Amino acid sequence: MVDRDATLTELIALLGPKAVLSDPAELAGYERGTRYGSGRAACVVRPRDALEVQQIVRWAHKHGLRLIAQGANTGLVAAASPDDSGDQVIVSFERMRHEIDLDVHNRTVRVGAGVLLQSLNDRLRPHGLCFPIDLGANPSIGGMIAANTGGARLMKYGDVRRNLLGLEVVLANEDATHLELMSGLRKDNSGVDLKQLFVGTSGAFGFITAAVLEVHPLPRQRATALLVPRTAASAMELLRTLEMSCGELLTSFEAMSRAAMECVFRFRPQVRNPFDADVPELAILVELTSAASTSMGVDLERILESALAALADGDEAPLADALLGRAEESWQLRHGISDCLRDAGTVIAFDISVRRSAILALRDFMIQELRQRWPHLQVCDFGHLGDGGLHLNLVWPHDCGVPPDAATIQHVREFVYDALVRQFRGSFSAEHGVGPYNVAMYERYTAANRLAIAGDLQRLFNPDARLGTVRFGSS
Amino acid sequence: MVDRDATLTELIALLGPKAVLSDPAELAGYERGTRYGSGRAACVVRPRDALEVQQIVRWAHKHGLRLIAQGANTGLVAAASPDDSGDQVIVSFERMRHEIDLDVHNRTVRVGAGVLLQSLNDRLRPHGLCFPIDLGANPSIGGMIAANTGGARLMKYGDVRRNLLGLEVVLANEDATHLELMSGLRKDNSGVDLKQLFVGTSGAFGFITAAVLEVHPLPRQRATALLVPRTAASAMELLRTLEMSCGELLTSFEAMSRAAMECVFRFRPQVRNPFDADVPELAILVELTSAASTSMGVDLERILESALAALADGDEAPLADALLGRAEESWQLRHGISDCLRDAGTVIAFDISVRRSAILALRDFMIQELRQRWPHLQVCDFGHLGDGGLHLNLVWPHDCGVPPDAATIQHVREFVYDALVRQFRGSFSAEHGVGPYNVAMYERYTAANRLAIAGDLQRLFNPDARLGTVRFGSS
Repeated sequence: MVDRDATLTELIALLGPKAVLSDPAELAGYERGTRYGSGRAACVVRPRDALEVQQIVRWAHKHGLRLIAQGANTGLVAAASPDDSGDQVIVSFERMRHEIDLDVHNRTVRVGAGVLLQSLNDRLRPHGLCFPIDLGANPSIGGMIAANTGGARLMKYGDVRRNLLGLEVVLANEDATHLELMSGLRKDNSGVDLKQLFVGTSGAFGFITAAVLEVHPLPRQRATALLVPRTAASAMELLRTLEMSCGELLTSFEAMSRAAMECVFRFRPQVRNPFDADVPELAILVELTSAASTSMGVDLERILESALAALADGDEAPLADALLGRAEESWQLRHGISDCLRDAGTVIAFDISVRRSAILALRDFMIQELRQRWPHLQVCDFGHLGDGGLHLNLVWPHDCGVPPDAATIQHVREFVYDALVRQFRGSFSAEHGVGPYNVAMYERYTAANRLAIAGDLQRLFNPDARLGTVRFGSS
Repeated sequence: MVDRDATLTELIALLGPKAVLSDPAELAGYERGTRYGSGRAACVVRPRDALEVQQIVRWAHKHGLRLIAQGANTGLVAAASPDDSGDQVIVSFERMRHEIDLDVHNRTVRVGAGVLLQSLNDRLRPHGLCFPIDLGANPSIGGMIAANTGGARLMKYGDVRRNLLGLEVVLANEDATHLELMSGLRKDNSGVDLKQLFVGTSGAFGFITAAVLEVHPLPRQRATALLVPRTAASAMELLRTLEMSCGELLTSFEAMSRAAMECVFRFRPQVRNPFDADVPELAILVELTSAASTSMGVDLERILESALAALADGDEAPLADALLGRAEESWQLRHGISDCLRDAGTVIAFDISVRRSAILALRDFMIQELRQRWPHLQVCDFGHLGDGGLHLNLVWPHDCGVPPDAATIQHVREFVYDALVRQFRGSFSAEHGVGPYNVAMYERYTAANRLAIAGDLQRLFNPDARLGTVRFGSS
């Protein structure tokens, strides 16, 4: 930043001293991403509303500065992390965490971009409502929109895009165009739905400053079971049959491989092995939920039991075993996997998806091919079988003696992504989005005509790529 | 069309004689829209696949011709109708009606753009599946995507956008760019989701040639009731309470005004008045559906009865009366309205939406203000209260003696739209899209910066507005 002090003084004069952080100690927490990404920022600026964001954009244009939007800094592809130049300005939405405006009869809520998912749900709970995108972290709503977060209950509730009924955006062009797309309507086909372009584009098309979200009745009951399919292939039959018999009640269908579960039992002893015999090759966590109470005549445990009984009947039945009613324990197991793999070794993590009809073939292929090429590697996969999402995480165990070098990790990643995209027509980023961590994959696997259009679009909204960390055009 | 014969001969040489229609008698059925729009076309060309669409685009560029995409020609805003110039070429997708490729385990179907909704559902039914966008007409899938069709079961299933997992598009630029966005993935955030731009843009951004749709389990049971709210205002309380108690089971919440119902009883005597006493000011058709069968322990009729009993308890209860279990009769009443209004008089039809929390205030305002201004006009409104959609149809009765002139109709439309958009922040096109019929409203009510961006986007995909009947930029 040329003449750093003068530009900062100008910014402080515009927005007040509380808006600007420039002390290196204060910056540290903003400069490093949750999993990837770590650099140095010129400063952090914290606007309170869209008008202040517009002032920041104009200030950045005047001084030729680059900007990065940052919510709760929980993203997993470094899209909100600065590079090493020390020139980028982080625009943090942490002072826009308070606006939560519920419209009970519309069943929608208007939120500031910085509002955290948990705060929103805390506010909705007394009204019997929730924003049902379910994930481990506590992101900001703006960040969730920029990543189009999916989560473990997508089967029932969809992703963020599906629940987004309005958006307020400030573009990073010279005018700092303020787009008010906040209708809050469920049915509106009165023109081009511009808000779609800011969903899942990693904050590189404009600053998201506020949103209108559809919210949902809080489930009044849940029924959970841990299923052991007869073979891995039977898992798809279980999915198909449960969808047909339980339909709109089916909320989660999460798969866990034996290797992944064993890691949890080993490194988190408080999670006990619920299986009587050996840990099965694959287990499925099934959850039904309903807004209707048992007093209304909907008894989810009975429904789930009845659906599972039909699946366990006969020698060739797809269901070998089912453990019912251990919701907390089952979700502890599921949510414990990611951390425990890190205790076991160096993790090469993947957030991929394929058509559900191809997911088992993909798994088989990867297990076999990876074992041949890198015998140390353990495939500890788990994921959202119900929506085709797979965290095909690979562990290079600490106790095998030889740690993997960077080149090997790179080879492994390329091997997996190449087969995934070219052979199985899957996605290299199911729910984490595109950021500096995986933008090379984006450039490698996106068809030339799509790259060209994406570049044109970005130039329209964000000329000179002044905002964000990703260039969606060809580099 | 300059040198018409030579250009047609060239087109026939490219695509074969069956592809081209130019006899005036053959053209007639393509030249007139269902409700609005009627003009003359240079010819109709009927491609069989995306490659042929590309050939048509290149041919049109060579000869400077304009193109219009047409599916089943059931749209309601004239977006698929030619103007009076006789210069436009209609590209009909009627020879792309056969590709229906079901992936049972992915619960998706790949369809050609010309496939009709009913053919698709006929094909899905034996598998226990359906494409649940529910409406009176039998449109093509490509047309449904271009209009982002909503329908009467949006509360449960969403609109077309929500069920679209892949798209194949041919742009109308000089290259006739072929965009293959057919992943069929439920979770995919590996770049800009370009397919969103072709949804709800009236076929003016590119030719939709194929799509991947998510399909759903066919409901195994339904429960229907006709509700009489204590007052019109109680209707919102009924909606809120039923959403909270029946949640994911609630599929439709359709409102019918007394004037609309009386029209049906008068002009379609086979639909009898189901109410014991007078026809109520407002009735609500409620429907629950479930993929779960009663043998699974889900009994929708019992659930609905129990939910309604709670709403009818006490003097101030929001529910005055409920007629259960007359599904066919209730839907006949609901679906009969639109036609019967035409028997009663000149209809000025509206397809509008507002936040649900504003819908009753909007109704009250319109009834009062319209009565003052145009005493002949009857407000015969009905619509999708559950999703904020309202067909605020106005009838100028045949039997009042004085038919309305064009200027009066125009005044009425402007009065309604102005109040709707400026005062109630609603949409002038909830589910019919934008076409020549209402593009003036689009230009009037869309903010200047949104118009500018929409125009930029259209230029990117469809330079010179060679394709389609709508210009989304400022004119």
